[in-house]
Amino acid sequence: MRGRLPCVNVPSITTDRLLRRVFALGAVGALKGGGCARLAFTEQDRRGRDLVIQWMKEQGLTVTVDQIGNAIGVRPGLEEGAPVMTGSHIDTVGTSGPYDGALGVLAGLEVIETLNDHGIQTRRPLAVAFFSNEEGARFAPDMMGSLVYQGGLSLADALATVGIDGVTVGDALRAIGYAGPAPVGRPNVHAFVELHIEQGPMLEHLEFTIGAVTGVQGIAWTEYVFSGVSNHAGTAPMSMRHDAGYAAGALTHFVRLMAEDMGGDQKATVGSIQLVPGLINVVAKKATVTVDLRNTDQDRLDEAIRRTDEFVRTLAAREGLGVERQELVRFEPVAFDEAMVSAVERIANDLGHPVMRLGSGAGHDAQMLARGCSAGMIFVPSVGGISHNIEEFTEASDIEAGANVLCRLMVELAS
Amino acid sequence: MRGRLPCVNVPSITTDRLLRRVFALGAVGALKGGGCARLAFTEQDRRGRDLVIQWMKEQGLTVTVDQIGNAIGVRPGLEEGAPVMTGSHIDTVGTSGPYDGALGVLAGLEVIETLNDHGIQTRRPLAVAFFSNEEGARFAPDMMGSLVYQGGLSLADALATVGIDGVTVGDALRAIGYAGPAPVGRPNVHAFVELHIEQGPMLEHLEFTIGAVTGVQGIAWTEYVFSGVSNHAGTAPMSMRHDAGYAAGALTHFVRLMAEDMGGDQKATVGSIQLVPGLINVVAKKATVTVDLRNTDQDRLDEAIRRTDEFVRTLAAREGLGVERQELVRFEPVAFDEAMVSAVERIANDLGHPVMRLGSGAGHDAQMLARGCSAGMIFVPSVGGISHNIEEFTEASDIEAGANVLCRLMVELAS
Repeated sequence: MRGRLPCVNVPSITTDRLLRRVFALGAVGALKGGGCARLAFTEQDRRGRDLVIQWMKEQGLTVTVDQIGNAIGVRPGLEEGAPVMTGSHIDTVGTSGPYDGALGVLAGLEVIETLNDHGIQTRRPLAVAFFSNEEGARFAPDMMGSLVYQGGLSLADALATVGIDGVTVGDALRAIGYAGPAPVGRPNVHAFVELHIEQGPMLEHLEFTIGAVTGVQGIAWTEYVFSGVSNHAGTAPMSMRHDAGYAAGALTHFVRLMAEDMGGDQKATVGSIQLVPGLINVVAKKATVTVDLRNTDQDRLDEAIRRTDEFVRTLAAREGLGVERQELVRFEPVAFDEAMVSAVERIANDLGHPVMRLGSGAGHDAQMLARGCSAGMIFVPSVGGISHNIEEFTEASDIEAGANVLCRLMVELAS
Repeated sequence: MRGRLPCVNVPSITTDRLLRRVFALGAVGALKGGGCARLAFTEQDRRGRDLVIQWMKEQGLTVTVDQIGNAIGVRPGLEEGAPVMTGSHIDTVGTSGPYDGALGVLAGLEVIETLNDHGIQTRRPLAVAFFSNEEGARFAPDMMGSLVYQGGLSLADALATVGIDGVTVGDALRAIGYAGPAPVGRPNVHAFVELHIEQGPMLEHLEFTIGAVTGVQGIAWTEYVFSGVSNHAGTAPMSMRHDAGYAAGALTHFVRLMAEDMGGDQKATVGSIQLVPGLINVVAKKATVTVDLRNTDQDRLDEAIRRTDEFVRTLAAREGLGVERQELVRFEPVAFDEAMVSAVERIANDLGHPVMRLGSGAGHDAQMLARGCSAGMIFVPSVGGISHNIEEFTEASDIEAGANVLCRLMVELAS
């Protein structure tokens, strides 16, 4: 990309203006005690959408809303054609901070306003988008809007999805007036870049300001249910037990050792264990254990799944337990375009911001856009790695750095 | 004891008569679907007490009820003095079979009726007792009546105990008319022997009919609460986690390995694990784990407690977790009189019943009586080791064998 340096000097964004919008949007669905909640297609989501679209129009963007509710604001280029797009989402989980998703959308808007202020035109059109229901907190799957946008899920199936409150996506969209007229998947996108908070501790811990995101981890969620025999903890000999609780413990212990053994970015978590009957002096007859495995490399992820399954089989046979296995979620890893990752690194270096490559542990809209165009992401640090929590926080200086990298990259990609 | 062989031929008990009483008592507090419930000092308990005391009186026993509700029926001997006592309890857990406790009381009554039928008198008096609130299902601690009888708990403290329903023992006893007039701890007991179902699988598994119980295991219940940091399972690197869920698993795994390593009759159980927030994709910030350790040898039990505590300390330090430790229960092991254990073995052998020595995993009234006299227990097999369950079952032939050993032993002890 060194051959495609921008033909103009790229001005800096205005941090205060960007942060004012971040907090103004964060005030929509504000929670008592801090943070905000705008579950997809709720009244709070509608008010957030109305506000962001008003801001888009104030900056002269032509806004379309498609049939799954994705909103896309386009700024014409000197030439017609597929835009360079940025964006993210403005729906949130039930206890969110103001940055998750919103930062990426509003930083895109700040890029537009900065270019407007300086009368800078790009060759290709630019676009700022927010995609519907990225969090999946009300309707599964998450990243629904961008998934439909790229054809990974049919519009009909998406609209028929029933939420945790029994309402369908279609009905909820209509209720808030965001079942748009535009066909999904338009416009075609030349390149997509998303600014997002890291939601993890690596950048802060290693003292980097910018993350050049190499890809998104694959995810495998599996539930194992062990069935044993309930017995008296005082009278059942150790050698004759069929202890489902022991199996839960041994599996939890195993996945940690396995992840450490595999190294790299292999992650393994047991976050949920349920024992039945769950009494201090009774050997458990049933244990339900969830295993969350993640890796940026599909072969390594498959290896982790295989090793876990093997361990469970051996364990169940040795302890004399029944075991049922259910695959809850499988997402393949996504690798971002190497040219995009390099460009983020180069621009961050040019601007004097310490930058590191890292994978994303969480899913993002950019991974869906990567199905159809060159896509990438810019991460900025999350203080304490805290995410999906009202204590979510990112320093203003880091937001400024991230938005400036985004601005340069978009101008460069559109030149 | 070989020098104290009975001076008369001891007749056999009548199994049908014994079983009729077992099932008649089991019909008091009968549950829909099988089994029975007679929680201590409830109306069901009262009806059970009335029935057993009526049977005691029909056999000519002089019945006293003491201030904690223990009922003792005495049959005079040729000489005055401390009786040879048998007995157990007739209160039950919420889902009991008909044998737990009741068998020991009613087998004692069957011994009396058998001796009455044959006109056999013993030198020492005989006594049949049922002790209050052995199960502890409504009022803690368990074995309350026998504990007060032997002075291990003051009468005042016992009467002030508040149950799970907010009622005190004193009020509950008065309500059912069993706050007796007799002082607790009378009469002194010459020797005590209790017939009980094993409530474990050893006798059935190893094909023995009679267990000569060597003692009762000591019990140590400890709760460990690990405090870590909640985090995103996808973004928190393995090396930077403070995962309370992992600690729960590692501890569960450890206590099993420790028990196997220590061998003997060391038992270790994690029956309860609670993770917070308990979500599939969130590293747990809090884990509450209970550890149930048992051994017939106090030094070995202390070693198991020490090794577990050491592991927890090392684990918490390595993972960067806080840990709180609470001792929930500590009961020292009880060793029964070797002369009593040998006598059970000898009599079982004389009667042609396969007999093994074994420790009791559960607590029994006999362990309280052992504080003041020579005490012992006779176990008969529990099919499948099932206990505290409406499916509790013991074969009639095994009940017959156990009651005949009890009969011979009592006559011998009273001669």
